[in-house]
Amino acid sequence: MLSVVLLGTGNLAHHLFSAFLNAKAVNVVQVYGRSAAHLESFAKDVPTTTDLASLEQADVYLLAIKDDSIAEVSQKLNRSNTLVVHTSGSVSMDALATNRKGVFYPLQSFSKDRAINFKEVPICLEAGQPEDLNLLQDLANKVSTSVHLMNSEKRRKLHLAAVFINNFTNHLYQLGEQICEEENIPFNILYPLIQETAKKVAHLSPRDAQTGPAKRNDQLTMKDHLDLLKNPIHKEIYQLVSESIRRTHEEKL
Amino acid sequence: MLSVVLLGTGNLAHHLFSAFLNAKAVNVVQVYGRSAAHLESFAKDVPTTTDLASLEQADVYLLAIKDDSIAEVSQKLNRSNTLVVHTSGSVSMDALATNRKGVFYPLQSFSKDRAINFKEVPICLEAGQPEDLNLLQDLANKVSTSVHLMNSEKRRKLHLAAVFINNFTNHLYQLGEQICEEENIPFNILYPLIQETAKKVAHLSPRDAQTGPAKRNDQLTMKDHLDLLKNPIHKEIYQLVSESIRRTHEEKL
Repeated sequence: MLSVVLLGTGNLAHHLFSAFLNAKAVNVVQVYGRSAAHLESFAKDVPTTTDLASLEQADVYLLAIKDDSIAEVSQKLNRSNTLVVHTSGSVSMDALATNRKGVFYPLQSFSKDRAINFKEVPICLEAGQPEDLNLLQDLANKVSTSVHLMNSEKRRKLHLAAVFINNFTNHLYQLGEQICEEENIPFNILYPLIQETAKKVAHLSPRDAQTGPAKRNDQLTMKDHLDLLKNPIHKEIYQLVSESIRRTHEEKL
Repeated sequence: MLSVVLLGTGNLAHHLFSAFLNAKAVNVVQVYGRSAAHLESFAKDVPTTTDLASLEQADVYLLAIKDDSIAEVSQKLNRSNTLVVHTSGSVSMDALATNRKGVFYPLQSFSKDRAINFKEVPICLEAGQPEDLNLLQDLANKVSTSVHLMNSEKRRKLHLAAVFINNFTNHLYQLGEQICEEENIPFNILYPLIQETAKKVAHLSPRDAQTGPAKRNDQLTMKDHLDLLKNPIHKEIYQLVSESIRRTHEEKL
């Protein structure tokens, strides 16, 4: 049985907590949060605390908190003999001020009201010592079937890739939604295309899946599209991404 | 029974052909293509021709050809009494040189080797005359459950939105893939995130779903990401899309 103290009360903390609850041989012994109100939804299942000085003993202290707070909170933990791990994609393991340290990074976008099949969430692990890496592998394997060892440098790059394919893609969806709203076109008419674009990438490399006016270098359509866009920054995005597509496929020739 | 002559042999033509084959009360009487080789895969199911002067009579001539060729091919058809429709998102209905004209635009990204559930493909219709619109509705309802009436102006805007959410999104996937390749990270580690990002948009507006360093205006992480990007145009995309996200969420406050 592995025991965990979970620090944090946000979306990730909620999803981790329910993944651990559903896992065999993992025991969340306590949840810490700064706000008693945010701890309420945990309190029916597990002891909670707002006091870092009152943490229970456990095999792992798991920090599911803001990137900016990782260094500070880890300093306050003051536990030389407990493994402390953070869950961030972009923060180095060395930001942790503790003796035993590691990273447990679930590569997924968690929202409050959306159920996630945690078994499919890739978890990227790193630890300062081999025994601690073993411990983290043990823990990760109990909640996911996709466990990866990755140092801080690689994880930083992976997080950057995730920003492109999640944050930026979502923003493109938003620009699409805005264009639809301006014309009173229901945005849901685009859902099947959004889904297919995402599904296709698992079967066809995005380089080979690329279509559209920029790839064909269809100047007429691109000019027409630029005329339709009113917002200057949206125009710029259109031009820049089109140019990047054009160059990529030029290189291919 | 509705009779159709299909003009074109590309991805869209193949998918339309199989949707019509599977539909009740639609009869594809002939497929036209410039190249006999490209007609081969149709020829086992239907008569084919490479000669525009030898087209059979039908209720609808359906042009699934390149945007640039629509005007020219429609001119050559020389059928004053047959309804001729194109299937393009960005070309105006008036590009058709025929007397009876219309548009039958399936809003989806079709690939050769990927099966599509055509029933879910939104089809946008337009016609010059009400009787022809009825005819197109009849035809569209036989292959899809998502049929929409839309004039050329709206369709142009919808096509522009589709470029953002399909072409540009796919390019972001490619940039993500490139970043992974540089670090020998298997790109498929990002598939679950790609899928979840796409699925989430059907439940949560992209504006509300937005997360990431740009939304938080987390300068430190963004600076770090820019340092990691080597390709100048990828740097520019990162900066511009981040700026666009930042502004969108600033406006919200």
